[in-house]
Amino acid sequence: MPEQDDAIAELRRRVRDLEDRLAIMQILATYGPAVDSGSAGPAAQLWTDDGVYDTYPAVLHGRAAIAAMVDGELHQRLIHAGAAHLQGLPHVEVAGDRAVATAYSQLVLRDDTTDSFRIWRTGANRWQFVRTARGWQVTHRVNRQLDGGAEARDLLSAALDEGHAQEGG
Amino acid sequence: MPEQDDAIAELRRRVRDLEDRLAIMQILATYGPAVDSGSAGPAAQLWTDDGVYDTYPAVLHGRAAIAAMVDGELHQRLIHAGAAHLQGLPHVEVAGDRAVATAYSQLVLRDDTTDSFRIWRTGANRWQFVRTARGWQVTHRVNRQLDGGAEARDLLSAALDEGHAQEGG
Amino acid sequence: MPEQDDAIAELRRRVRDLEDRLAIMQILATYGPAVDSGSAGPAAQLWTDDGVYDTYPAVLHGRAAIAAMVDGELHQRLIHAGAAHLQGLPHVEVAGDRAVATAYSQLVLRDDTTDSFRIWRTGANRWQFVRTARGWQVTHRVNRQLDGGAEARDLLSAALDEGHAQEGG
Repeated sequence: MPEQDDAIAELRRRVRDLEDRLAIMQILATYGPAVDSGSAGPAAQLWTDDGVYDTYPAVLHGRAAIAAMVDGELHQRLIHAGAAHLQGLPHVEVAGDRAVATAYSQLVLRDDTTDSFRIWRTGANRWQFVRTARGWQVTHRVNRQLDGGAEARDLLSAALDEGHAQEGG
Repeated sequence: MPEQDDAIAELRRRVRDLEDRLAIMQILATYGPAVDSGSAGPAAQLWTDDGVYDTYPAVLHGRAAIAAMVDGELHQRLIHAGAAHLQGLPHVEVAGDRAVATAYSQLVLRDDTTDSFRIWRTGANRWQFVRTARGWQVTHRVNRQLDGGAEARDLLSAALDEGHAQEGG
Repeated sequence: MPEQDDAIAELRRRVRDLEDRLAIMQILATYGPAVDSGSAGPAAQLWTDDGVYDTYPAVLHGRAAIAAMVDGELHQRLIHAGAAHLQGLPHVEVAGDRAVATAYSQLVLRDDTTDSFRIWRTGANRWQFVRTARGWQVTHRVNRQLDGGAEARDLLSAALDEGHAQEGG
């Protein structure tokens, strides 16, 4: 029944695309629990071996550098005073074995004096992924603060171009 | 093999429902990057030609009005001072070629004097969608502030009725 | 065509897994609209009859206790002054008829004096679910504030172990 074979092949493509999208959402949803619990290894393993996390002014190259950020004095001080690294609903584009997610992130800090939490950072993020034998991994993440400058706006508008490129492609 | 045809038809229905839900999440995830990058055209094109964005006290009718809001003086001032339009995890109901999403939105603004971001707006949103030849598009979005008034509560409780209607239907 | 039967069975498993993940996201996306609209019944019905909501220092046992929290004086005062219970992007693990979601939650309150919203609470949440004849329901939710203490960190790192357990299992 070749029509059935075709139908099954088409369903497999569609199901794989859905799985890819949810896998990428899951990676974003893992980042906060990893870094806010001080789990340096699991946080770093979201990236490829030579993955990059570019969070101005620091550019972290490779898993060891990302793990060192989590174990570092500043990060440890924040999470022991009360901190949450929140990721927003991501815009996701998958193209074969590559994918891009665009999402907001926030870093909120406990402020005991006001019995509340302060939003210290709100950034635009562009996450790039590659499909590996061990699932999707981050090759590059750029985080730029929404401080009114052009960099964050350019990063966000790149997500819209992505969509258009895919419509056309 | 009619049982296999039935099984394939059922899988197609289920996969389409999943695709619909993720497509609607993707629209919500596109809104912020579009307006925060000042991309008036892509923001307006999330709506149908005659789509409505009702964000009290303004009611924007049609794509040109939505694009004009993005290009407008107030919005431009906000995004050049640092602003993020965040959308929460949506409650989504799809029924044929119509869909409704209910989600929180926040508008946070950079405040240089405190080195932090202030939440200026937190609203309840009801997004209505129609399936078109070019994919899902917004026909109507209502945004009501969570200011203690009944309007936002009524908007949120409508999402619960939606679920019940579908269970029964 | 036994290969086609196998292919269909495999697709059914994969589609069910995707449906499960989106159903669990939908439950988290329903909680806020339910409690912020004061809908005590729909909020309680997200849980099983004997489900638990452990939100330090209160531990609510069963639907009646959860409904009573929503109808209670404190909660009613908050939602009539302007309140939003926001849920973050969840980390989800499904294993047969059980599932766990790990997600941040925030409670933001309207502050008329500053024309803005204050983040009163930011918590780490572990939601446990069971598949029932009426769909997924919450058996247990624990919410711990990100106040710098070990409890929230332990809760977040449990999500990472979950992932590892599933990879190995």
